[in-house]
Amino acid sequence: MSLLVIGSVAFDAIETPFGKTDKIIGGAATYITLSSSYLADQVQLVAVVGGDFPKEDIALLQSHGIDTQGLQIKENEKSFFWSGKYHNDMNSRDTLVTELNVLEHFDPIIPASYQNSSYVMLGNLSPDVQRTVIERMEIKPKLIAMDTMNFWMDIAKDALDKTIAMVDVLIINDEEARQLSGEYALVKAAQKIMAMGPQFLIIKKGEHGALLFDADSVYFCPALPLEEVFDPTGAGDTFAGGFIGYLASTDDISFDNMKRAVIYGSAMASFCVEKFGTERLVNLSDSEIHARVQQFIDLSQVQIKL
Amino acid sequence: MSLLVIGSVAFDAIETPFGKTDKIIGGAATYITLSSSYLADQVQLVAVVGGDFPKEDIALLQSHGIDTQGLQIKENEKSFFWSGKYHNDMNSRDTLVTELNVLEHFDPIIPASYQNSSYVMLGNLSPDVQRTVIERMEIKPKLIAMDTMNFWMDIAKDALDKTIAMVDVLIINDEEARQLSGEYALVKAAQKIMAMGPQFLIIKKGEHGALLFDADSVYFCPALPLEEVFDPTGAGDTFAGGFIGYLASTDDISFDNMKRAVIYGSAMASFCVEKFGTERLVNLSDSEIHARVQQFIDLSQVQIKL
Repeated sequence: MSLLVIGSVAFDAIETPFGKTDKIIGGAATYITLSSSYLADQVQLVAVVGGDFPKEDIALLQSHGIDTQGLQIKENEKSFFWSGKYHNDMNSRDTLVTELNVLEHFDPIIPASYQNSSYVMLGNLSPDVQRTVIERMEIKPKLIAMDTMNFWMDIAKDALDKTIAMVDVLIINDEEARQLSGEYALVKAAQKIMAMGPQFLIIKKGEHGALLFDADSVYFCPALPLEEVFDPTGAGDTFAGGFIGYLASTDDISFDNMKRAVIYGSAMASFCVEKFGTERLVNLSDSEIHARVQQFIDLSQVQIKL
Repeated sequence: MSLLVIGSVAFDAIETPFGKTDKIIGGAATYITLSSSYLADQVQLVAVVGGDFPKEDIALLQSHGIDTQGLQIKENEKSFFWSGKYHNDMNSRDTLVTELNVLEHFDPIIPASYQNSSYVMLGNLSPDVQRTVIERMEIKPKLIAMDTMNFWMDIAKDALDKTIAMVDVLIINDEEARQLSGEYALVKAAQKIMAMGPQFLIIKKGEHGALLFDADSVYFCPALPLEEVFDPTGAGDTFAGGFIGYLASTDDISFDNMKRAVIYGSAMASFCVEKFGTERLVNLSDSEIHARVQQFIDLSQVQIKL
């Protein structure tokens, strides 16, 4: 089934203990669409860039089968730019620069050919823009998943609450779940957040894996213990892309299939962190993905009789 | 098969955000033997207490089928005492009081009837005392597992290295693994630590689960997402007791069976934290344990075809 993805397509400049980059291609929707393109048949991008965005990077997305009809190019404006520096433990980072540029007045226009999309992934963006996308879908999608971050909890809580109430799956990290719910224990946080609307909740815990909740069940997917995390930028978006891409490709939104989707999301994210930016993500084979998913299965599966 | 356990049997005074206790029964060997008593047939305790240690607490251990022939009682001395206060996040604690008392000159005497033990669990103690136990076993046990802590890495590294080189399984937490190896990434830490001697390594990550390594494989067992952690004291020892108790009861030291043992250890530990001290651990039923192990399986197991 087809998958509509909205989010930022942007420039990043990244510094980690392993080195630093100049302006490279980044943004939530870049990672989400690249990741999901390995799984879903049709990936449709809604985003905005400036005239400074390289045509070859758009061509790169297209070469992954990503439909860029919904990518607006504002020739006289500049692309969104983010720059950040990771601390030595790679678990925290400082934002050095945020230039909204084209994102400041982003009006998400959905091409007519996208209106058939059954799956929608709302990458991290202003919750008002995310909600506009939902409202502009003429046919209700089968599943809407959403990412957000603490920034919107701080400055746009009411708008965020409205959007969260309209989605089926919310994907956030542990600190965001704690902030959003006011609960420290993640089980309690999950209950409160699902009461806000989403039927499913994914709480990402970085190197500690991810939890999937619905009203009755919880599933835990480990992260692969890695020798080296080279650059965590985009790992969360890549997870979301793998997750929703797997759901779109299998067209099954049961809890059991969501568990499998979390494994695919985790596997895709584990590739992302191996190199700077999208470097690893643009160059994956199906057999590599297959082998990585098998590693996740080997890591956590047990034969046990009670 | 029979299981020999050495470690402290002691008094603890605990303060958590939920309240505080007077002196209650504690110590690594108390938690290990109680936990393993639900699984292993014969649990044999080697420890030392002072004349101040209540006879009813010894009777309590005996009522769980724990053999206390190896429990020395120094009538004119005082039992080991530890007092600690947990911070609000329950992940860190301050030690308020440590009185070694009888532990200062502990000579671990192994009763003749314990010499047949196939499984040995060395609870956290001076590495010299731990090694003495190994040297005093007349027949080489089938499996020796060992816990330790950063304190011994700080003050007795050479003695610790000697003991680690003699054991089959080392069970430590993530911070200890990092300190012991000088490596931040746990995969690298594991490789270095196994090169020190142990064929198997378990790295406990508290609320984030536990990793089991051998030279070729890694298994990840999640922790149960809990609504409330009431008191973490003894959770690591309870894990070790469940782990080694399951191995002793099944008498199978394959990697696959160790994976199951890690689930049993995690299940036992998840009970421990529900109440103060040993309160929950002294009062468990087989059906409760069975149901909890099932919860761990439900939490992490997936049907997936590649």
